[in-house]
Amino acid sequence: MDYFKYKNGRLFCEEIDLDRMSGIKTPFYLYSWNTFKEHFLRFKESFKELDPLICFAVKTCNNLAILKGLARLGAGMDIVSGGELFLSSRAGVPADRVVYAGVGKTAEEIELSIDSGIGFFNVESEPEFIRIEKIARGKNKIMNALLRVNPDEYDKNTHDKTTTGKKGGKFGVDLEHVPAFFEAHGKSDYLKLTGIHIHIGSPIYSAEPYTRAITKMIDLIGKLGEKGFTIKYLDIGGGYAADYEDGASPSWDEYSESIAPLLQPIADNGIKIIMEPGRTISANAGILVTSVQYVKKVDQDRNIIITDTGMHHLIRPALYNANHFIWPANPGEAFSVTERRFDPDFDGLMEYDIAGPICESSDYLAKGRKLPPVAPADRLAVFTAGAYGMVMSSQYNAQPRPAEYMVDEDKVTLIRERENYGDLISKQCDRVITLG
Amino acid sequence: MDYFKYKNGRLFCEEIDLDRMSGIKTPFYLYSWNTFKEHFLRFKESFKELDPLICFAVKTCNNLAILKGLARLGAGMDIVSGGELFLSSRAGVPADRVVYAGVGKTAEEIELSIDSGIGFFNVESEPEFIRIEKIARGKNKIMNALLRVNPDEYDKNTHDKTTTGKKGGKFGVDLEHVPAFFEAHGKSDYLKLTGIHIHIGSPIYSAEPYTRAITKMIDLIGKLGEKGFTIKYLDIGGGYAADYEDGASPSWDEYSESIAPLLQPIADNGIKIIMEPGRTISANAGILVTSVQYVKKVDQDRNIIITDTGMHHLIRPALYNANHFIWPANPGEAFSVTERRFDPDFDGLMEYDIAGPICESSDYLAKGRKLPPVAPADRLAVFTAGAYGMVMSSQYNAQPRPAEYMVDEDKVTLIRERENYGDLISKQCDRVITLG
Repeated sequence: MDYFKYKNGRLFCEEIDLDRMSGIKTPFYLYSWNTFKEHFLRFKESFKELDPLICFAVKTCNNLAILKGLARLGAGMDIVSGGELFLSSRAGVPADRVVYAGVGKTAEEIELSIDSGIGFFNVESEPEFIRIEKIARGKNKIMNALLRVNPDEYDKNTHDKTTTGKKGGKFGVDLEHVPAFFEAHGKSDYLKLTGIHIHIGSPIYSAEPYTRAITKMIDLIGKLGEKGFTIKYLDIGGGYAADYEDGASPSWDEYSESIAPLLQPIADNGIKIIMEPGRTISANAGILVTSVQYVKKVDQDRNIIITDTGMHHLIRPALYNANHFIWPANPGEAFSVTERRFDPDFDGLMEYDIAGPICESSDYLAKGRKLPPVAPADRLAVFTAGAYGMVMSSQYNAQPRPAEYMVDEDKVTLIRERENYGDLISKQCDRVITLG
Repeated sequence: MDYFKYKNGRLFCEEIDLDRMSGIKTPFYLYSWNTFKEHFLRFKESFKELDPLICFAVKTCNNLAILKGLARLGAGMDIVSGGELFLSSRAGVPADRVVYAGVGKTAEEIELSIDSGIGFFNVESEPEFIRIEKIARGKNKIMNALLRVNPDEYDKNTHDKTTTGKKGGKFGVDLEHVPAFFEAHGKSDYLKLTGIHIHIGSPIYSAEPYTRAITKMIDLIGKLGEKGFTIKYLDIGGGYAADYEDGASPSWDEYSESIAPLLQPIADNGIKIIMEPGRTISANAGILVTSVQYVKKVDQDRNIIITDTGMHHLIRPALYNANHFIWPANPGEAFSVTERRFDPDFDGLMEYDIAGPICESSDYLAKGRKLPPVAPADRLAVFTAGAYGMVMSSQYNAQPRPAEYMVDEDKVTLIRERENYGDLISKQCDRVITLG
């Protein structure tokens, strides 16, 4: 669900008719705060019996306004870099609610994290454990580590580029090596190996890969217990899907109905569950608004819409062949869509490819989509763009990055200014360096 | 060729031993000015009989230090956005040497271009011609337009995402529609349709696709002449390859030997030839220097190097499955490589996957590469990273973007500062907007 709805042929974000934003230059990202809020609260409600620590995956959408709002609702943060620690800290998230995953933690990032007093390191490899342990020891600080385990489970519907739970990859430690890891490091005084972490990719379109992976982890926790290693935390990661089309994703209750009963016994036994939803909270909470620049007729049946946004602002179609529902912001009563389908059913639609301005053949937002007839200056909404949208944007082709706006009921707030040409060179300089 | 060479087992950029840069924090891009310079001058020399206007493709590498240097050598600029016009202008490039291509030119970008007095619009579609013509008329300015024609020629070795000369795509006008286009718009008083532009993609690994496309254009120019449309400019675009491995690309003389004789007769007839080399000038002029963070042993035969750079700084491997030669900056005498091959031939190499810190399975710089044994803190050079490197970088995972340095003989200049965490939020704000 989300609060982007058509009423009488016009798109509203909560109480704001997008026509009222026609004076604002496109492209821009537009977020619905109450979508974020309800998503977080409903997700929490679905899993309330487990009383998990819910850490929002900052990598999906990281504007401070969003992180602050989620923090006020009690969210922790799932971070993957020193930069995300900085954002989380700026957003006022209590450090003990922060879990830090990521395969490349630098010494500097680890020091910052220890100094900040983060709750948990999700440790991805043995050399990383050794590095963190050494730094913690040097600072005489005691930290918690969860070992990221590869359950070798995944969803065949997840794109290869975002499947992260397979064996032998850069992420985590393969299951069969976990007992030896605990034997070697499970008694550290400075980096307490208190938990297990899994993250099997994103998006995962059913509960089943989770239940398979969790079953393996419960078994593992039992075996570790027999060897004297008490597990206090199980972080089951994120990856919960989003509605790129209506109903594409299972509901949170559906995930919960399969996942929670498996976890309840260990939660009742005192193991704290940690969850890291990202996309499932943020994706449907944002759209990318763009203006049609040209409609180019290629031949009898082919029309290409050229917009003012593309792979530099939303790289998912180019990088993952991802599909986003796209529809005019003001299509008129006849095309007042109530259900988002890549193949919508209206009379009078035309088929379009929707391209961006970048000089690459991959710079399409979508191909072969049926839309109401579109003309230059029309605005289009690219839906479900709240996750892996702005955070992956670049200045490719020297295009400034877009603004971000947030709607809360009838209030619109600019939360990131559009870049200008000067920003393209703001870090450039001409400074001769003297080397040793 | 380029000026990144191993001497006695240590990597030099021109006269600078990279060991002397060990105090500079990785990752960073490092450019060799004399590689840029020689590439440009040798390219020019190869085509000197044609006396072409050589416009550097700014989209490949756009630091002002580089654009300024090339402009001083007489280069024009091939731009694709208002942002690139801004950069070109800041770099002191005379506007009449600027050609502006790109499918999504906004009204604002067109106005800026006319006000700047650029040499040529490369027009991609009929609605774009109409828009530019109207704006020029409104400003009472006379501008030159080259019509971008799809020759429907390409190189089967070019990645689908960067093939741009195919029929029916977002770029240009299909060949069979060109005569009608000239009939409709060839007599405009404000937007003079004085030329033809082609650009068949990048990289193109042989002269043959060019010669096929140029042959078609010469035929077209003849036919247009018969109808009373005199062509004064033929822009044959860019796409010339680079040496991702030594010898992968034809030499400029090889391109020239096939291309120049075709063009000489029309050049002698007064048609000015325009060329738009980008990658072939910039790719081999830059490397990306990264530090090994971890070496993760996955099983008996598999080792993964985790570096401090990845798809956020160099997206080509993730996006195009592109290969870059990677080698330690200080491998020692035994591994002083003289030839860059993805499958190098030395005793004592080990096989590694080379991954970045980003939380995606696609974040690899290379897989299955043989390298000298590598340890944490070693520096690696990712070669041929001068094109489509920094210009495509993002702050994904809240990672600040890297610095850029330029070497000119024994002088090292910082030409772009490394971003810091504050830069991640420098455009963020919290400003309530009043809508109409």
